[in-house]
Formats: sequence, structure tokens, C-alpha cells
Amino acid sequence: MNNLRETFQQTTGQISGHGKRNAGVLKTAFLDVSDDLPSDQYGTGSVIQPFEQKLAATLGKEDAVFFPSGTMAQQIALRIWSDETSNRTVAYHPLCHLEIHEQNGLKELHPMDTLLVGAVNRLMTLDEIKALPEIACLLLELPQREIGGVAPAFAELEAISRHCREQNIRLHLDGARLFEMLPYYEKTAAEIAALFDSVYISFYKGLGGIAGAILAGPAAFCQTARIWKRRYGGDLISLYPYIVSADYYYELRKDRMADYYADATQLAERLNAVSGIHTTPEVPVSNMFHLHFAGGVDEVTEKLTKIQEATGIGLTGYIVAKDGYCSTEISLGDAYRALDPDRLNTVFQQLEHAFT
Amino acid sequence: MNNLRETFQQTTGQISGHGKRNAGVLKTAFLDVSDDLPSDQYGTGSVIQPFEQKLAATLGKEDAVFFPSGTMAQQIALRIWSDETSNRTVAYHPLCHLEIHEQNGLKELHPMDTLLVGAVNRLMTLDEIKALPEIACLLLELPQREIGGVAPAFAELEAISRHCREQNIRLHLDGARLFEMLPYYEKTAAEIAALFDSVYISFYKGLGGIAGAILAGPAAFCQTARIWKRRYGGDLISLYPYIVSADYYYELRKDRMADYYADATQLAERLNAVSGIHTTPEVPVSNMFHLHFAGGVDEVTEKLTKIQEATGIGLTGYIVAKDGYCSTEISLGDAYRALDPDRLNTVFQQLEHAFT
Repeated sequence: MNNLRETFQQTTGQISGHGKRNAGVLKTAFLDVSDDLPSDQYGTGSVIQPFEQKLAATLGKEDAVFFPSGTMAQQIALRIWSDETSNRTVAYHPLCHLEIHEQNGLKELHPMDTLLVGAVNRLMTLDEIKALPEIACLLLELPQREIGGVAPAFAELEAISRHCREQNIRLHLDGARLFEMLPYYEKTAAEIAALFDSVYISFYKGLGGIAGAILAGPAAFCQTARIWKRRYGGDLISLYPYIVSADYYYELRKDRMADYYADATQLAERLNAVSGIHTTPEVPVSNMFHLHFAGGVDEVTEKLTKIQEATGIGLTGYIVAKDGYCSTEISLGDAYRALDPDRLNTVFQQLEHAFT
Repeated sequence: MNNLRETFQQTTGQISGHGKRNAGVLKTAFLDVSDDLPSDQYGTGSVIQPFEQKLAATLGKEDAVFFPSGTMAQQIALRIWSDETSNRTVAYHPLCHLEIHEQNGLKELHPMDTLLVGAVNRLMTLDEIKALPEIACLLLELPQREIGGVAPAFAELEAISRHCREQNIRLHLDGARLFEMLPYYEKTAAEIAALFDSVYISFYKGLGGIAGAILAGPAAFCQTARIWKRRYGGDLISLYPYIVSADYYYELRKDRMADYYADATQLAERLNAVSGIHTTPEVPVSNMFHLHFAGGVDEVTEKLTKIQEATGIGLTGYIVAKDGYCSTEISLGDAYRALDPDRLNTVFQQLEHAFT
């Protein structure tokens, strides 16, 4: 398995992402920043507050709070809605980030319960949501990352939102990749966020920043979120390394999402044409999809390692064994556009040779 | 009040600190860092792990974990010791950071209780510690910041440590300013840390980094701390902006603490010679002390504002009203050493004129 990661790290071009995650990402963002720029200080100051207001406006919400991480932001959002509705139970998809990546933080840190809605291999349905008992909040993730980046039609989102408002259920958007979804929906971020009571977005997915998140919602919600941010130890004296870079890459890439989406669609079609390779979804709805290779983990690792070594183009640094095939995640960004088409053709020739 | 802050921000030299907290602090730390330096990734990689090991060795502990904040690190330390001893109660000073600066995070996030030991105007005593009921953990802060930076004699620390070991009480060190204490104790960090089961240190106090903390202790303790760090949303994909700068300023300033301590002692003596001005402690034991001016808040604000405007030297950006006097905090660093002695003399002449 290590060979795959090592050869990936030595590649000079990559299918996914925006280039390597290294100190250059920080240094580039700070290149034109003056040494005199004052640090934010415990959530105040000219670095943080105007940025929070800009994102609040973009998302059409009264206020927004910058957080070091989405993990912290989303647990806090659910806790606030739980307190406001005096209901301990929140609901989300079985492959929600809170369920599988946070060491059960929500329930370890809060007196809360969770319900899992739907199944691990598909989106939850409106009928499944309607069948839920009384809950404080429903969390929806757009796109649903762990099943390859799948999302409901906008009309379905509207129907879910209508139902939640009728039932006094708060609706929270895990919009880690919200900007990546806009070209598919042909909507603004605010038009989608309007269906939700609160919204989280991430700055290091499609936007390619270093770390950090925004949680947006009503003014009182954000005021309480700032208190919880202090309780969690997220109200750092200085968050500017993340904020300055988040702003830099947000402005650089927010209008490129249609390109990344188009690239994902075209690349997925080309990959699906290779026998022994397929993607989920078959037709992407954002810049991402999951990529599956027929064969066991050793066999697929060996094949991909050889291709990465031979071409210098990185497909992936890891694969996960499934039943008869292996999977990885692809998310398109600036790196794909920078690839030489001839080198990419060579990758496809070798994939066809290896997997057909 | 705003005038004091504004005039302070416009000063060209300061009594406290290492210069202004601005983007230059980050850019300086990254000046010689290659763009190719790979980011840490969720707690792994060459940026974070060797740094954690270096601090573990310096503190004489088996392992250490880098955290975005001390708030997060210390709550987690207390929770782990509480779980390990099956006791919900921890004890600390009434002016402990957890008691007054964290929006009650420990008790809001954990099923824990706290006992306050001693009084707000002095250190806790061994007798008071001996009188405590059964507790999981005692937190000691060295120096006790909110009373001006006061610390017990080393023999007293040893006696407290002995008592806690005999009584199966875990002893945690809030060593936000531990390095600043070493010249007074004439001990190494490891010699002091040896009296404690776990230790937290901060990188943006006397060391002057951007943010971030280390929590050190036994291997199993640190392993559990990493799980809680993930739960809190502190296990960021990239912490390198804080780690690289923490390491840079740690190496730059760790051996300057004796100078800062000497400066604090000499400056406090000079300030105590002015009528209407005094410091606590009268004789500092670290690089810090509290500085008190006779008079009401408006009067003292006006006087200090005028002195800052006239001299261009910053004494403080804020004062807190007390009973008949006003207080602020001074912590010596590189900025004091950079002051022109003649300009400093002018400050003292004006202080004498204003307060005598």
C-alpha cells in the first residue's frame, strides 16, 4: 500500500486537487500581504469580521462565524438547534462526517442522540425524512461525499425544506462542498442556503485553502456559536493564517467551479469507457466522484503504482478494498487543467492495458 | 478607554511583548521555509511528529500532542484524568483560565465538577490542598497569571507533588508560561514537569508565536488526548502554520528567558520607586507582573494616553478599574530590550510627573 502513496507523492502532475498541500500554499496566499496587517484577536479585528460578513452575505444569512474546523462548527450548530427546540435528537445520513470521522464527538461532548436516515449506498428520501419521529434538526450534506458526491434535485431539496419548516425541524446544510455544487444546480449559494436554517462551508476542499470553515445562520444562532467556539477552544487569539488563505483561495477559485464540474463530467465519461473501471455517480453532479477498479487490493495497487511511476501523473495515494473491486476519490481542481494532454493520453492507454 | 488602545497601537516601541502581533510574525517564521515543505495531515507527517517528540523530550514526558489552543488541551487533560480515576471532580485556583476565560467549557462539554482552591488574591496552600475531598486531578498554574505572575517555591511544589502522588491525585501543570519560570527556579523544564503527570505549554506567551499549545504526558494519556482532539475538531488537516511558527519562536527565544526575567525585576523596581505606582508581585518571579496606577479609570486613562502620545512608547492598551487604582499586565520580551534608554527615561519622567 505504501508504494501507491510514495509513487503518488513523487508524481509531477495529479488528476485531483490543486497541486500538493505544502507550505507554498500558505506562502502564496501571503505573498502580497503586508507585514503590518494586524492579527485578528479572539474573533475581533479587520482580518476576521469583514470576512465573516462577506460570507454571510454570499450565503444570504444574517451572520457567519469563522471556525478552525467543520467538525467543531457542525457539532456546535446541532447543539444550538437542539437547545433551541428542547429536543436532544438530530438526524443525518449514515455516512455523515459526524457519524464516521469524528470519534463520536457529538455524543461524547453533548447530551444528544442521533438517528441515521436512509442507507449507506444512496441518498435519504423525503419519505424517510417524513417517517422520522420528532427531531431538533436534520443535517443534509451536499453533495453526499461518501457515496461519491451525489445530490438530490433542487425540487427535492425544496420539498425537504418545506417539510422541515412545517414540522418545526431545523435544517442544517453540511455544505463543505457547497460552492462545488452551484454549477449543477444553476443556483447561487444564497438560493440554496435559503432552504436551510444554518450552513457550514469548508475552505480546503474545492477552494483549496489550508483549513477553516464558516458557519452561517441567524444572528442569535451565530452569537451562541461564538460562545461555544470559545468553550471548544476554537476562539484562538489568531486565526489569520487560515482566514487570509481562505479568503485568497476563495476569491481565486469560486468562479472556477463550472470548469471543475465540466472536467469531472468529461473525465468520468472517459474513465467509464475503460473496461474494469467505473465511477459513482456515473455522471458527476459536482467536481468529484468515486473511482472503482476491478480486482483485489494488491493487484490494483501494483497496477496503479506502475502507471504512476511510468507516467509521473498521480491518480491516487490510496485505495480502499471493496467486494471484488477497489475504490478511491477524485475531485477535480486546478491540477487537472495543468496536465499535458499527451501525458494524460498515456495514462489512459496504460489504464486500458492494465484493467481491460 | 478607546484612546488608550488607539494611542497604544500607534506607538513605535512597547514595554511588553515582542513587537506587534501582525502578519509579519507569520511571514518571518516562514522566510526560510521551502514551498515544498509538505503539510502535516491530521496529526501525521514530518512537520508535526518530530516537533511533538522534541517537546516531549524537553518536558521529560513519553509523548506530546500539538493542539490549536490551551483551552482545548487542558479540558481534555482534565477529562482524561477524570475518566482514569473514575472521579468527576477536579480542583484549581479560583482565577484559573478554565474558571474565568472559557465560558464554562469544561462543565458544558463534560460530566465534570470543579472545586476552587484558595482565594482570588493569593496562591493556594498545601494545607488547602490537603483539606480537599477526593478529587481526580489538581491543576496548578505556574506562574499564577491572574494575580500578577506569582509562584510557589520549588520545595512547596515538591511537597504538593508528593501529597498528590500519595493520595492518587493526578497533578496537571498549566505551564502556559513554564519556560518563563525556569530562570527563577533555576531548573530545567523537565525537572519541573517531573513533579506533574501532565503538562501544557503555550507558544504565544513569552515565546511570541502565533497560537498553539503542547500537551505532554504518558504515552497512553497522549493517545487518548489525540482521540479527544479529533472529537473537539482540533485535529485539523493542516496545523503547520502554527507548528512551524511555534518551532521558530521557541528556538529563537527559549534561551532568552533569563534576560526577560532580569528585565522584569529591574523594571518593576524602577516602577515601584514612583509614588502612585506599584507592581504585584513587588519582585517578579518571571518575565511578568501586574502594574497598578493610583486613581480612577478616566483619570489614569487620560494620563497614560498622554504619555503614550508624547513618547511614542506603549505602556498598555487597556486598564481595569480596581478599588482606588487601575491595573494592567506587563510581560517582558524583545520589545523592551529594543527601546532607546533615553526615550524610556522620558517615559519615567512623565510617569513621575503624572502620578506623584
